[in-house]
Amino acid sequence: MFNAKTDKKTALIFADGCEEVEALTTYDILYRAGIPCTKVSINADEFVKSSHEVVIKCDTTIDKVNFDEYDMIILPGGMPGTPNLRNCDALCKEIITFAGFGKQIAAICAAPSVLAELGILIGVKACCNPSKEAEIESEGAIVSREPVVVSGNIITSRAMGTAIPFALAIVKHYLGDGAASYIKSNILYTG
Amino acid sequence: MFNAKTDKKTALIFADGCEEVEALTTYDILYRAGIPCTKVSINADEFVKSSHEVVIKCDTTIDKVNFDEYDMIILPGGMPGTPNLRNCDALCKEIITFAGFGKQIAAICAAPSVLAELGILIGVKACCNPSKEAEIESEGAIVSREPVVVSGNIITSRAMGTAIPFALAIVKHYLGDGAASYIKSNILYTG
Repeated sequence: MFNAKTDKKTALIFADGCEEVEALTTYDILYRAGIPCTKVSINADEFVKSSHEVVIKCDTTIDKVNFDEYDMIILPGGMPGTPNLRNCDALCKEIITFAGFGKQIAAICAAPSVLAELGILIGVKACCNPSKEAEIESEGAIVSREPVVVSGNIITSRAMGTAIPFALAIVKHYLGDGAASYIKSNILYTG
Repeated sequence: MFNAKTDKKTALIFADGCEEVEALTTYDILYRAGIPCTKVSINADEFVKSSHEVVIKCDTTIDKVNFDEYDMIILPGGMPGTPNLRNCDALCKEIITFAGFGKQIAAICAAPSVLAELGILIGVKACCNPSKEAEIESEGAIVSREPVVVSGNIITSRAMGTAIPFALAIVKHYLGDGAASYIKSNILYTG
């Protein structure tokens, strides 16, 4: 059963073609930590089909979300999930607003490229999937090869295999090192 | 798009209360590797709700599956997913048949306890979630603390944080070290 440890809310954005493990590892770890996380579909209904054709039911659809109530937007990667996120005007408008107000944004794998295209990574140290490094660099990002990079209000990560460290960085942001270490130990993660 | 690299088929079993990341990390990696994997719901319909309340649509239901066509049964852990697996007579009958014929069985986290209760781990080196170690030992297993243990036809693993090594062990079984190393490198897993 979910047991909230903070009143900050996070919005995890699901598009058709999202990488399901990047999305759900984040959800799983935030759930364990007690960080409220709403699964938001950018489709007209709550169902999305992931990059590996897994059908997942989200909690709500983007047209019903009041992003003023949220503290963080989280973007999973995957193909064609990432271009689907970029092509969602309602989402990109909210990302730009979050960036403008210095609110939290987290993106993994190919999804940091969405932030780069929106002009949010200019002069920002960030990481992403190797396939997108040249692209985010050309949009002004300072590219890192670390598994996770926290640059002020922007958290980025590289791939499905770094989803656990990505999620733990979000836990650390809201609840501190002790909470992140506890979860890491509890799931027996040794990476 | 899925590109099969073997004609062996695996059945990944979903119960209400399953640990969604243990299940879907396995699915994701088998999909990437080209190992056919059917998501089988033990419910009356294709939908299951995971231990963290994520609704996932499976490919089929257990009553429609002919297990003779399958080479491996894979059990994710999670609570109460694990006791739900144990209480599914149709599944347990198939697990016993697989064990009897020396066919492949893989289980992670709490799920190795299902195998132990069915008498399949007597004298078998295996690992599982720390919360279930005493139980599988009392049923005759030789308990290991390694992240993954391959004992003949039985593959076991310990927790959500070891799901990637668990899935990679299945890839190695079907397609060899090179295929597993390629996937590991491609997802940037460093654990």
